[in-house]
Amino acid sequence: MKYSIIVIGDELLIGQVTDTNSGWIARHFTPYGWDVKSVKVVADDDGEITRAIDEAFEQTDVVLMTGGLGPTKDDITKPTLCRYFGGELVYDEATARNVEQVVAKRHLKLNGYTRAQAMVPSSCRVIQNQVGTAPLMWFEREGKTLVSMPGVPHETKTMMQREVIPQLLKKYSSGIDIEYRTFIVIDIIESALAMMLDDFERNLPDYLHLAYLPQPGIIRLRLSGSLPDSARINADMDRYSKQLHELLGDHIISDQDKTLPEILGDELRKHHLTVSSAESCTGGNIAHVITQIAGSSDYFLGSVVSYANEVKENVLGVSAQDIAVNGVVSEPVVRQMVDGVCRVIGTDCAMSTSGIAGPGGAVPGKPVGTVWMAAKCNDKVVAQCCHLPGDRNRVINRATTEALKLLYKLLRELD
Amino acid sequence: MKYSIIVIGDELLIGQVTDTNSGWIARHFTPYGWDVKSVKVVADDDGEITRAIDEAFEQTDVVLMTGGLGPTKDDITKPTLCRYFGGELVYDEATARNVEQVVAKRHLKLNGYTRAQAMVPSSCRVIQNQVGTAPLMWFEREGKTLVSMPGVPHETKTMMQREVIPQLLKKYSSGIDIEYRTFIVIDIIESALAMMLDDFERNLPDYLHLAYLPQPGIIRLRLSGSLPDSARINADMDRYSKQLHELLGDHIISDQDKTLPEILGDELRKHHLTVSSAESCTGGNIAHVITQIAGSSDYFLGSVVSYANEVKENVLGVSAQDIAVNGVVSEPVVRQMVDGVCRVIGTDCAMSTSGIAGPGGAVPGKPVGTVWMAAKCNDKVVAQCCHLPGDRNRVINRATTEALKLLYKLLRELD
Repeated sequence: MKYSIIVIGDELLIGQVTDTNSGWIARHFTPYGWDVKSVKVVADDDGEITRAIDEAFEQTDVVLMTGGLGPTKDDITKPTLCRYFGGELVYDEATARNVEQVVAKRHLKLNGYTRAQAMVPSSCRVIQNQVGTAPLMWFEREGKTLVSMPGVPHETKTMMQREVIPQLLKKYSSGIDIEYRTFIVIDIIESALAMMLDDFERNLPDYLHLAYLPQPGIIRLRLSGSLPDSARINADMDRYSKQLHELLGDHIISDQDKTLPEILGDELRKHHLTVSSAESCTGGNIAHVITQIAGSSDYFLGSVVSYANEVKENVLGVSAQDIAVNGVVSEPVVRQMVDGVCRVIGTDCAMSTSGIAGPGGAVPGKPVGTVWMAAKCNDKVVAQCCHLPGDRNRVINRATTEALKLLYKLLRELD
Repeated sequence: MKYSIIVIGDELLIGQVTDTNSGWIARHFTPYGWDVKSVKVVADDDGEITRAIDEAFEQTDVVLMTGGLGPTKDDITKPTLCRYFGGELVYDEATARNVEQVVAKRHLKLNGYTRAQAMVPSSCRVIQNQVGTAPLMWFEREGKTLVSMPGVPHETKTMMQREVIPQLLKKYSSGIDIEYRTFIVIDIIESALAMMLDDFERNLPDYLHLAYLPQPGIIRLRLSGSLPDSARINADMDRYSKQLHELLGDHIISDQDKTLPEILGDELRKHHLTVSSAESCTGGNIAHVITQIAGSSDYFLGSVVSYANEVKENVLGVSAQDIAVNGVVSEPVVRQMVDGVCRVIGTDCAMSTSGIAGPGGAVPGKPVGTVWMAAKCNDKVVAQCCHLPGDRNRVINRATTEALKLLYKLLRELD
């Protein structure tokens, strides 16, 4: 089954907001064998929206639309849909009641604009928005379906899961089995990986496809395919997954589509170890990515962000003399930081970073992007220096990834 | 001037990667009066790419394309462009030398796949990629221009700034003056703000447009317009900006398009104050968003992420009895955390958080989303309890925003 996504909003076209809805929708439909044909982002403009719907219906029977439903003057999706599908805007009692309930739950007062949300095209079936004021609208014409949803990511996600996905699957169910497996690969660049897998890819059956999804410091390999024969696809998947493991060995750190903080968390939990971080240039980002994982309090106890040298010395016990002699971006400093934070926070393991995220701060011999980092597990400490490319945010993110990988590899030695 | 963006990549359509290039491009062209007509995301598929180019050229003379240029088998943009614009793929000496230089700078070895990058359509003009191996390709036909760029965000951004934007402006310069001003607004919801600005909007001249760009906890108001008469547009902008300030008063915390951490940083710098954070449920995210700002070391000294109760007690000096009596998500705890971290890190100001980010951890009377937070500036401490909607990440991000706002408002009292 193929479908199209239309994303509406001037704010997306001038780049003030980034569209995350389309990716979320795609990710949650893929397991059901539903593929996005295309995503189109257009302005809050009657002509543009109409044209996008025409183009989408030319290619697919189902169109999902997000955005352009806010209560303010710059949102014109509703009248446009009303013109497109016919009928007129009518006051809908059930929608009005729903808006009142949502507004009451937020302890806010109803005003003219929120009340305007209860006006809906007579040509649609309304799906009440349980978590916001803009109603979802389901239009059908000549076997084709268009669902208009609010642009607020949280509302789209909640209502897609509760109503839109189940209702669409029921209407357009598919007999095809789709399978995909993801492998998380580290310590090899994309082109070298592609060379290693040249024969493997050549020998894949036509219906299986290998995709490289590189991220800074990590590559996700995705093997995917669809067939009506689910026994065959599963057997093939098993066979080719095994081949990938044989070819790539320790480069594969997970054969589930997990993030690096999740993979590290699994490893810590498995060995009943606790972790902390002592962060200079990463400024708390290591702690942040670890604590984004639900349940991370099982192994993560805390961190010290030691941005100023005095904090490194006074809180973590780094030697002022070592800072003076070696510079603050140096191996002795990150080794003392990782020891210090294990002592202060009381953990078995830790990571530390000290580097130059830029754009300022470079010193002779240590350009922007130079980051020293250490990882500690029980009595063992390892340290490394990385030269990371890019702007401040890229250096921070990449240093975070490299620090997590360093500790992960240290933990793997325990297996 | 209008242009189109085409974003290529299977990984975007299955939602494994989010497109940030199109937003970046739009943001950096807007000041020159260039508007994006539409953004289309399509698969690595010859037919889809061809169709998207046809559609884009129908609407605009300039098409910017990113992605689909990696060295691996799933990228087919280059042969598609070669078929579209004619000619054949030829080995380009200058590109080969550039690839060699880029690879050498990364201390990597050249292999067959990176060498394949030097094959380019004979119908294009190559712009050498100074920071990656995939060359940029500039095609022209019948007064229309298509520029194909790599999908790696850092490469697109660097090369857009250095080459593509200047070359496109030179070719299609415009005589129109575009102006826009952004106002950062807090402590009011979108629909209430729209009611307050009802008359204001009605009285705007036709060529000026007010857009609401809500984010969790903050609304950016954008007043924009374009005219050939730059004196008039500037005078009008000044006049309506002044009106907005009169109408919204303290709701406006900046009339520059700055982020909350930047606005807080400016305020701290102005008063020569230093800051730290003591974070439980935000898990280091406050420190992270502050240290994303270049130059934040002027005022940010460090943080303690106190995820475990023992860290709150032992490092920050929170009373174990207060935790036992009031619960760890409580006013006395965040007040003691903010005092503790000012003492430990040695700062004038601090923020603290303790809450339930979910999905687990709710206790009777304190559902998921309950977050206590405090802010301290010199001897003054304020605390508040927020009930934040959404999943774990939304709660973490929103709690971060609310904590920054709490300290910002405390600092504003010093003015």
